[in-house]
Amino acid sequence: MRLATIETWAGPRAALQAGDSFIDIHATEPNLPGNVRQLLEGGADMLGAVAKLGQRSNAVKVPLSQAKFHAPIVDPRKIVCIGLNYKDHAAESGSPIPKDPVLFSKYATALIGHGQTIVLPKVSSEVDYEAELVIVVGKRGRHLTLQNALDYVAGYSVGHDVSARDWQLKKDGKQWMVGKTFDTFAPMGPVLVTKDEVPSPQNLKISLKLNGQVMQNSTTNQMIFGVAELMVYLSTVFTVEPGDVIYTGTPPGVGQARKPPVFLKDGDVAEVEIEGLGVLRNPVAQEK
Amino acid sequence: MRLATIETWAGPRAALQAGDSFIDIHATEPNLPGNVRQLLEGGADMLGAVAKLGQRSNAVKVPLSQAKFHAPIVDPRKIVCIGLNYKDHAAESGSPIPKDPVLFSKYATALIGHGQTIVLPKVSSEVDYEAELVIVVGKRGRHLTLQNALDYVAGYSVGHDVSARDWQLKKDGKQWMVGKTFDTFAPMGPVLVTKDEVPSPQNLKISLKLNGQVMQNSTTNQMIFGVAELMVYLSTVFTVEPGDVIYTGTPPGVGQARKPPVFLKDGDVAEVEIEGLGVLRNPVAQEK
Repeated sequence: MRLATIETWAGPRAALQAGDSFIDIHATEPNLPGNVRQLLEGGADMLGAVAKLGQRSNAVKVPLSQAKFHAPIVDPRKIVCIGLNYKDHAAESGSPIPKDPVLFSKYATALIGHGQTIVLPKVSSEVDYEAELVIVVGKRGRHLTLQNALDYVAGYSVGHDVSARDWQLKKDGKQWMVGKTFDTFAPMGPVLVTKDEVPSPQNLKISLKLNGQVMQNSTTNQMIFGVAELMVYLSTVFTVEPGDVIYTGTPPGVGQARKPPVFLKDGDVAEVEIEGLGVLRNPVAQEK
Repeated sequence: MRLATIETWAGPRAALQAGDSFIDIHATEPNLPGNVRQLLEGGADMLGAVAKLGQRSNAVKVPLSQAKFHAPIVDPRKIVCIGLNYKDHAAESGSPIPKDPVLFSKYATALIGHGQTIVLPKVSSEVDYEAELVIVVGKRGRHLTLQNALDYVAGYSVGHDVSARDWQLKKDGKQWMVGKTFDTFAPMGPVLVTKDEVPSPQNLKISLKLNGQVMQNSTTNQMIFGVAELMVYLSTVFTVEPGDVIYTGTPPGVGQARKPPVFLKDGDVAEVEIEGLGVLRNPVAQEK
């Protein structure tokens, strides 16, 4: 299944992709919630009911060409981000290969969907791009094992970890979050693809184009800590919950590592593509 | 007003303190939500309706002596933490006085209420205590000013920023969050005191006792960045929202700065007290 959150007359609504249209899940079946996180909380039974909506003759549909996207999960309880999780990116950042995953976070106020605008804050002059595979958690758990970790994954999405380098790296205390969680700095989508449609999450091409030019181009087999290892590590520290969003780190090619550096500017268009998951395209505008 | 979230037959419910009892808000007035964050989202009108429940002859009450507390806000969209925000604590940590607030975060899975147990993870041997004043946001906003910042504050609470120093400070990447967001590492409460009852948030005694012994003892006038300055800074980066929880940093006396260091151990009892806001008491137990 490909699940999205699209704008409707009633606000953001969970939707199921069916060919070249999206089915408004709650409008089609009022017993199902109109929120993707709540659908995930409903577990296999509820997701099974969603899957059947594609066969309904009375399905309420929005054509793909008219869909306005929010992030697939608009209200995650957590957004976890992993730093330095591709060997070559750690090298270009001048950082050693970490022994454990490096964790930081964004707030949900940073989330935007496919097509929504990344806003460059007036207070930063070094906003960079980062293409990332996103994991979405499907089940509540703690102290997972490598054997059961993937049972707790709902699926995957395309993410963009927008990063104000001046705020991330040059402030006292050296805590990265502040430069990572400006409003609009967490594009995600267009859709959440359930894991049954992603047989090999560690073998997906991932790329980022800026104004059509390829800036990052790698595969998820370059990740230092894979999906299962990350789930185990996170759940050592805290309870993972349905709808939790995990940005898994970026491959090489980011703007600050280039000579001269490349930063996002008003009028740019960023496109992150992950094999089988889709293209996440966002225009960039300067804050007025 | 003093608002709490207490355990009821129907699960956690928003409650209003009235003398030596708590009024179950939703049970008394079904038109009002049973969730403190949602009450804050209702704004002044809804909070005015809550305030009047104390006069209801049919109020559904739980005696204070029988109340089992959750964190006053059980489902904040954000938990923001400020590091090194007392001059003397920055000194004892060997850190310079920061030029800007240092931000990190916890996840809501870390929240516990007054009386609930702080669990020491098996994977840490250096869990420390930190007494903190907590701000609760009352209104959505961005780009606040020193003039209007306090209009966006709902009230204050007592917080405990439990910190696994080995995970906070000794991991690659040096990102503090991972050591700060183990499950149960964010005690808060017992109550949220609305700001009308806290005329001088920058002039409150704050202390922490461990097994009855005073370990931290200061006042909030020692904060480097005060409540209004923090609200302005945070809202430069992101939209603040009703129910957002802000831990404002700790005064000197933490365990790791002592010689020899003092860390929490099974059977300890930690009590954080802030003048006018109450005492937050939590037992400590080793993870089994």
